[in-house]
Amino acid sequence: MPKTSVEVKIGNILIGGQNPVVIQSMTSTKTADVTQTTAQILELVESGAKIVRITVNDEQAARAVPKIKDMLIAKNCFAPIVGCFHYNGHILLEKIRECAESLDKYRINPGNVGFGELYDKNFEIFIKHAINYNKPIRIGVNSGSIDEVILSKLMDENSAKSDPEPANLVMRKAMVKSAIVSAKYAEKLGIAPNKIVLSAKASDVNDSIAIYRELKSLTKYPLHLGLTEAGSGTYGIIATTTTLSILLNDGIGDTIRASLTPGPGENRTTEVIICKQILQSLGLQQFCPTIIACPGCGRTNNVMHREFVKEITNFVTIHTPLWQNKYSSFENDIAHLKIAVMGCIVNGIGEGKHADIGISLPGDTEEPCAIIFINGRRVQTVKGEDIITKFKQILEEYVDNRFSVTKTI
Amino acid sequence: MPKTSVEVKIGNILIGGQNPVVIQSMTSTKTADVTQTTAQILELVESGAKIVRITVNDEQAARAVPKIKDMLIAKNCFAPIVGCFHYNGHILLEKIRECAESLDKYRINPGNVGFGELYDKNFEIFIKHAINYNKPIRIGVNSGSIDEVILSKLMDENSAKSDPEPANLVMRKAMVKSAIVSAKYAEKLGIAPNKIVLSAKASDVNDSIAIYRELKSLTKYPLHLGLTEAGSGTYGIIATTTTLSILLNDGIGDTIRASLTPGPGENRTTEVIICKQILQSLGLQQFCPTIIACPGCGRTNNVMHREFVKEITNFVTIHTPLWQNKYSSFENDIAHLKIAVMGCIVNGIGEGKHADIGISLPGDTEEPCAIIFINGRRVQTVKGEDIITKFKQILEEYVDNRFSVTKTI
Repeated sequence: MPKTSVEVKIGNILIGGQNPVVIQSMTSTKTADVTQTTAQILELVESGAKIVRITVNDEQAARAVPKIKDMLIAKNCFAPIVGCFHYNGHILLEKIRECAESLDKYRINPGNVGFGELYDKNFEIFIKHAINYNKPIRIGVNSGSIDEVILSKLMDENSAKSDPEPANLVMRKAMVKSAIVSAKYAEKLGIAPNKIVLSAKASDVNDSIAIYRELKSLTKYPLHLGLTEAGSGTYGIIATTTTLSILLNDGIGDTIRASLTPGPGENRTTEVIICKQILQSLGLQQFCPTIIACPGCGRTNNVMHREFVKEITNFVTIHTPLWQNKYSSFENDIAHLKIAVMGCIVNGIGEGKHADIGISLPGDTEEPCAIIFINGRRVQTVKGEDIITKFKQILEEYVDNRFSVTKTI
Repeated sequence: MPKTSVEVKIGNILIGGQNPVVIQSMTSTKTADVTQTTAQILELVESGAKIVRITVNDEQAARAVPKIKDMLIAKNCFAPIVGCFHYNGHILLEKIRECAESLDKYRINPGNVGFGELYDKNFEIFIKHAINYNKPIRIGVNSGSIDEVILSKLMDENSAKSDPEPANLVMRKAMVKSAIVSAKYAEKLGIAPNKIVLSAKASDVNDSIAIYRELKSLTKYPLHLGLTEAGSGTYGIIATTTTLSILLNDGIGDTIRASLTPGPGENRTTEVIICKQILQSLGLQQFCPTIIACPGCGRTNNVMHREFVKEITNFVTIHTPLWQNKYSSFENDIAHLKIAVMGCIVNGIGEGKHADIGISLPGDTEEPCAIIFINGRRVQTVKGEDIITKFKQILEEYVDNRFSVTKTI
């Protein structure tokens, strides 16, 4: 198990240390549009993001920040808001102090602060405001905007070698170095070590894994994980899952974001749901009951089984927040439920028994009735056209019996 | 790096040893329906499955097997076909010899062969036919059908302990034991060690990872990885990716299957595409150019960027097989292409330069023109309504210039 990271407080949220992994997201609205940005932050928080980043790219955006923060508080949302700065962050923070004050964290990209003396000067302004307003920072390195001074130097040194390394290995080193050099410089300028979070996101899975492993071995700052520019569709989801799950499984990562390109019209909250599903699949956090369902084969009635799995998955997704609200003292227990929806007896009875509640549907050569299991025991067989409706009723009764306070006292 | 597994030949496909990870799939058609089953096998193979399993659940199914095999060969498909047996496999193989002969591998589930003396007797019949027909076998343990004799014994021993382990840890041990006991018994009955593949699929990610790590440490048989009963939708994809990527990243796994429940009407080939994307994301195999695309934020023109990413992703997906066919000597090189579709200059120029070909679209506060990069150099800026069409043309020209044999000689 790798060493524990330093605990950092971002607004009202703790990351690092022994805290659970925190899910982050970022808005895609114009920050200057206070109403739309506030609405999207609320949606992201509602879906499970604990920290939300917004771009602060110009004066209009910077002036909108305190208004967004006020509107969120008026709506009882206290999620920390992080300002994402590139090129002109030092100018905006210097000029619009109410922006510097109302943000809960500043994200600084060391590759987009300026180079050489300009980097030193601009970076110092960032840190000055972080100290003045008592804000944490994220040193957020990205493979699309690596500090060119550091990269060129390492590339030159590499070219001079008798046996130069491939360019991507040099790029990995440059990203790690950029993150650490900036963090150390920030500390030298007077910011406390427990005010610094690091990220170094690459767009390649193996680069990302290698970079974060190196960062973990070299520093104690909490690490914000992400695969940058992961892309869209299932490939974006899979590449993100591969990166995050390998690192999290090694005990690396304190906060995560999925950088997925939404499809046209797709809700931004998809990336938050993906993060929840990654954490749940690894058994790190539970958000929703798990549906165990076989893929179906030549034994199963696939039309019935697929429809059943879809219906029950939707039913559970919709009902979980209602159940959690109704039985709030069992919120976490409800999320731990396992529900099996199996297509035939081959694995149906076994998985049905392992699950809290399960149904083994009749395969094509079996009797046309479904067997229902509760807590490992066969309790009922159901027949007829409306097996789905009957199973939903039994599931609701099961949840009610198990979690209703009056009944369990 | 863990030790290399033994190489096993399944029909014309080698798994284990130094061979690349092989993708498998399984049909969902009735095996007795020769036409439909053959058609689905062809689809699965076309989409990338190298080995296809079919259920052989009754006499009709068993009698259909040689016909399916003949029809596949008539269509120039030589993919190995694996028979999946439960409960009555020993009877079917004994009775319908042409089935035993035409299959390329037998999958035996030790939990569904019978128990005690019956297990010994039935298992022996399986192995006798495997030896007679020179076929490899897969000992396929599943958490939904664990050998009850082994499980009960371990559960009893555990209960007798002063500090019993949680039930799922005992279940892990039972699954590992069942796989190894059956493999050793098969060897004792005379089958060669290089005719045995093992799997032990659980429906929980952490159970699966622990079980396969244990199997890898204890045996040299090639391992067939899978998360069983992974379920549907993105959760099924993510839980499968988590399991397979963590194991593959540790050098564990010789062949993989994604056990996803398709949505109603969804094509069975989804599970094959997911396997390809897992292998590609880990850099183990390349099937299609990678699209690097940012998630968009408050800086980007999200309507344009999302549409662009979708269009280019579809374009590349459709054109890749055509390009690979046209420039067959560069098939693998084409799959290694990186194409960046970025939403603004923050990371757009950097990722554009790293990619083989990239476009940085104008963010909301940028000049309304897109910058195109080829091999790290800015080559063109494009404007106007039809940037997508122009970029597609440039992309096609790039592929043609780079891979056309006449031009590269």
